[in-house]
Amino acid sequence: MTLSDRFKGIVPPVATPYNADGSVDTTALKRLVRHLVDGGVHGLFLLGSTSECVLLDARDRALVLDTALAEAAGRVPVVAGIMDAATDVCLNHARTARSAGVDGLVVTAPYYTRTNQAETIDHFRYLRGEIGLPMVAYDIPVCVNLKLARDTVHTLVQDDLVFALKDSSGDEGGFRMLVRDFRDRPDVRLFTGSEIVADSALMAGASGCVPGLGNVDPAAYVRLYEAAMRGDAAAARREQDRLIDLFQMVFWSAAELSAGAGGVGSFKVALRHMGLFSHSHMRRPNRPVPDAVQQRIRAHLVQHGLLPAGPGGTAS
Amino acid sequence: MTLSDRFKGIVPPVATPYNADGSVDTTALKRLVRHLVDGGVHGLFLLGSTSECVLLDARDRALVLDTALAEAAGRVPVVAGIMDAATDVCLNHARTARSAGVDGLVVTAPYYTRTNQAETIDHFRYLRGEIGLPMVAYDIPVCVNLKLARDTVHTLVQDDLVFALKDSSGDEGGFRMLVRDFRDRPDVRLFTGSEIVADSALMAGASGCVPGLGNVDPAAYVRLYEAAMRGDAAAARREQDRLIDLFQMVFWSAAELSAGAGGVGSFKVALRHMGLFSHSHMRRPNRPVPDAVQQRIRAHLVQHGLLPAGPGGTAS
Amino acid sequence: MTLSDRFKGIVPPVATPYNADGSVDTTALKRLVRHLVDGGVHGLFLLGSTSECVLLDARDRALVLDTALAEAAGRVPVVAGIMDAATDVCLNHARTARSAGVDGLVVTAPYYTRTNQAETIDHFRYLRGEIGLPMVAYDIPVCVNLKLARDTVHTLVQDDLVFALKDSSGDEGGFRMLVRDFRDRPDVRLFTGSEIVADSALMAGASGCVPGLGNVDPAAYVRLYEAAMRGDAAAARREQDRLIDLFQMVFWSAAELSAGAGGVGSFKVALRHMGLFSHSHMRRPNRPVPDAVQQRIRAHLVQHGLLPAGPGGTAS
Amino acid sequence: MTLSDRFKGIVPPVATPYNADGSVDTTALKRLVRHLVDGGVHGLFLLGSTSECVLLDARDRALVLDTALAEAAGRVPVVAGIMDAATDVCLNHARTARSAGVDGLVVTAPYYTRTNQAETIDHFRYLRGEIGLPMVAYDIPVCVNLKLARDTVHTLVQDDLVFALKDSSGDEGGFRMLVRDFRDRPDVRLFTGSEIVADSALMAGASGCVPGLGNVDPAAYVRLYEAAMRGDAAAARREQDRLIDLFQMVFWSAAELSAGAGGVGSFKVALRHMGLFSHSHMRRPNRPVPDAVQQRIRAHLVQHGLLPAGPGGTAS
Repeated sequence: MTLSDRFKGIVPPVATPYNADGSVDTTALKRLVRHLVDGGVHGLFLLGSTSECVLLDARDRALVLDTALAEAAGRVPVVAGIMDAATDVCLNHARTARSAGVDGLVVTAPYYTRTNQAETIDHFRYLRGEIGLPMVAYDIPVCVNLKLARDTVHTLVQDDLVFALKDSSGDEGGFRMLVRDFRDRPDVRLFTGSEIVADSALMAGASGCVPGLGNVDPAAYVRLYEAAMRGDAAAARREQDRLIDLFQMVFWSAAELSAGAGGVGSFKVALRHMGLFSHSHMRRPNRPVPDAVQQRIRAHLVQHGLLPAGPGGTAS
Repeated sequence: MTLSDRFKGIVPPVATPYNADGSVDTTALKRLVRHLVDGGVHGLFLLGSTSECVLLDARDRALVLDTALAEAAGRVPVVAGIMDAATDVCLNHARTARSAGVDGLVVTAPYYTRTNQAETIDHFRYLRGEIGLPMVAYDIPVCVNLKLARDTVHTLVQDDLVFALKDSSGDEGGFRMLVRDFRDRPDVRLFTGSEIVADSALMAGASGCVPGLGNVDPAAYVRLYEAAMRGDAAAARREQDRLIDLFQMVFWSAAELSAGAGGVGSFKVALRHMGLFSHSHMRRPNRPVPDAVQQRIRAHLVQHGLLPAGPGGTAS
Repeated sequence: MTLSDRFKGIVPPVATPYNADGSVDTTALKRLVRHLVDGGVHGLFLLGSTSECVLLDARDRALVLDTALAEAAGRVPVVAGIMDAATDVCLNHARTARSAGVDGLVVTAPYYTRTNQAETIDHFRYLRGEIGLPMVAYDIPVCVNLKLARDTVHTLVQDDLVFALKDSSGDEGGFRMLVRDFRDRPDVRLFTGSEIVADSALMAGASGCVPGLGNVDPAAYVRLYEAAMRGDAAAARREQDRLIDLFQMVFWSAAELSAGAGGVGSFKVALRHMGLFSHSHMRRPNRPVPDAVQQRIRAHLVQHGLLPAGPGGTAS
Repeated sequence: MTLSDRFKGIVPPVATPYNADGSVDTTALKRLVRHLVDGGVHGLFLLGSTSECVLLDARDRALVLDTALAEAAGRVPVVAGIMDAATDVCLNHARTARSAGVDGLVVTAPYYTRTNQAETIDHFRYLRGEIGLPMVAYDIPVCVNLKLARDTVHTLVQDDLVFALKDSSGDEGGFRMLVRDFRDRPDVRLFTGSEIVADSALMAGASGCVPGLGNVDPAAYVRLYEAAMRGDAAAARREQDRLIDLFQMVFWSAAELSAGAGGVGSFKVALRHMGLFSHSHMRRPNRPVPDAVQQRIRAHLVQHGLLPAGPGGTAS
């Protein structure tokens, strides 16, 4: 059974918890992995943007992989990001990930380096040739400043360099075109990276979703996926609409934080309120979510049934 | 005597030569450092974009620093880039650079991480606080996807986080405004990163220039600088116009290479033709300059007096 | 019955046919209006981007309005774009449109002028105050270089300046957020401007779609809409998938034409093949669709059942 | 004597004054033209971005042309913008301008229409062919959303479609390349549109400058130009540095106004303080400069010697 056979559905990008001193909190990471697997997710994406991948050095990355893989214990497939600016450094990360035992790699275009589409394809080719693991192309232009062109995705698939795409480009029309282009290639797995149009993507034929918000409420995304798979658009939309409401917390820090820190930061605050994480800070230079927003997120979780109402739950 | 006192003039970003197997060619790197210092440059910028900084792992970076610093032997101040996506990883590079003995650090905004101006200022603050070396802010939005705002540069200076700026933003009007803003602060050093408007920047009050093309013809940039310093605009322009002509080689690969590979790649081909480098390839995934362009560059160097006409020199 | 009550469903932006001499072909325009109304569309959008609005002077615009309104004869509501760079010139167009008898106006942000969100809101306010017709906000940043912010749309609705939005921004996630924000305001009509994710938008709660491709196959978009309204996601998707296939013709001129000319140009070629238009050229400086692509479009229409196979139909 | 022979130096884009009711104030416009010609400018650019060209309808544009041309009375060459979104509408404006007696036309790329470089060249070709007047290419991507490529400028010159360029792209490096490319074509006139690097551009070989701020202090730009022409870089820089200080007023409204309204709006406030204009408002939807900034501009003018200190002059 190939990875492509098993790799579909809800595959959250696993957030990375830290101890007070900033080191990786392996206990909390295990709790999160259990929370996700128990929530029914179909796979795990380690060391993605939501995991603060590029804020972790090689040692931290290895620790995250070893910890999460041990906890997952083969119950679901696990893929890992190897984000770095250029090929040879990515290769180092890829070798670590392979040794750790991941099922596949998630690869972005090079960044900082201003490479073009052809050089980006070469990047995938080098990694595929030297590592051999199945690869997922990760299209995230807000981070890497290059959009994977439609033709590039075709080349990556035709040359057997990737078996899947995670599309976090925000270009839902372009994603729909790719779903169309590969409608006769069920082995090609197309994932949306959007938390808020997962129902639309799945009903249109996408293979799955990689939702950062899935850290907080994995079971809801699983219900959404299952509804879509049985063709129940109304049920899928109900789940999605509730998740869109839940998602609004990412905007509450916009006056003070960057979009990155407001998004992942909110998820981590929620995970702390839910008892999964002991701390919610991100790695520097990301600033913490303001205290008032942290309290507002607690109330939000209560409203959405993710926390029991209680002493803290009444905070607004 | 502070670094600010000594840090002005022509400070080329030193290209990184490789052996055939891709390892750093320390012999060629020493030759290049001698070429630059003998050419009269006023400082060296190691591990910048032209050095393919982000394509080098920690070990390679340390080797470049040790090799170049040993060769420079204190004759000119040496600053080093610590490019990485986020604070803690940059700190690792910064410690290595400090141990190696550099005079100062060159720091960009974080990248991949989508940080805002405030988080970027924090990034500089952490580095300044924990490393203590003088720092140069490096504004290069094409690589890091964030332009350092005018207010940000003011804060970085006022809070004593940086003593200098290298502006590779292409926003020459904005740079001119900064030159104006700091006209009463001669201790604040403003460098243009542009090879082609160095005369304008210097005549307008800039402290110096960080020209990638300075690897190829350092003496010409030094002459340009000296002409500008003595107020001889016509002589500065003559040097600049010749250097603009020389620079045209960076566009000759545009049909095949990205701007990065076409630019740095051309400089490395020239350095090989000039006998300073044994190889001209860049690190992956950058593609090599096409053969026909390599020959054309040889003829170009002959025309510009950087190579004697000869058997190879007559190639077109 | 207010316009809001009647304004939903499929509202194609009506293409503008020309005679050989470039004047507006009123006979062909009437044929197209009949084709659309007979195809079951729920409204008409005159003088939009697909209508080449900004390529038409005041006289041409009045002629288009008078011709199309006479042909529509009140069978469906008709709204009209008043595109121009700034308020006072838009007011002139708006008065013409009001005199012609349109049911509402479609208004973009000012362009060329670099206005901000607040000034854009003022623009709507002036138009609303002086003309009084119901207005649709048209978000089309690729044309006007400003994205209507989520807050701006809220202000436009709260201040009763617009009752509807046409979103051609390509930001489907943002559109989904607006659908959520106004879920308790059924009188606020949210239209997607995308031809290729209409099923997703409608299943998620959008009021309708403004598809340029709807000129060519209005009945298919009406079927798609009706399927979505009765909750039959699978049927809606089947229509959408066929329409995505049909839509591919817009890319076939990409090597030679701009995206604008390749898109609208292809629709006009199809309308000529279908006998609705006598000519398919756009106004200058748009270039015509290459001959080979024109033939390929004919075959494409045959394949999609929009033309009978025949002597010309076998062209590839 | 061709226009190219006479067209160089300081050519301010003439601001458009309005009466209280918003109509063009022809008396004030004549005063401004006298102020500019008496200030020694070498030409006038009517109906440019600083003139709020696209906010004026055809009648207003004709009135501006007739008024200014009558006042200029042939003492300096006069060129006029014909800004509109597409070819045929621009042709209407061009015919009006030709009838009014302008010496040449200023032409941007089409806008709103998403045309490419080839279609943009066609646009110039149609205008040149049908109007016959000498033309200036106006590169202003912030308004029209397309940068004229270096190759495009070459084609426009080689095909004799334009004899001059006004570069307001902010890409000073690219402008320097064009100065280089046409160094053997003194008949090709290259103007910078930047108020703040005019000395650099002129010392590098540019033909002139089109400074919006030149409305306020034309004589200073003329002195700057003359200093540059006689090779006195230090004197040119002194004038430029003073003008950069004067220019700072355009940023003082940034919290409330768009860049367009803050820039042109500040110039108009200055012209009112100087008694040249009776009103300083721009056309809608541009908002007026805040009162506090208006007072601050008065003090600024006093400080820069453009207003006598007096009762109002002491305001801060």
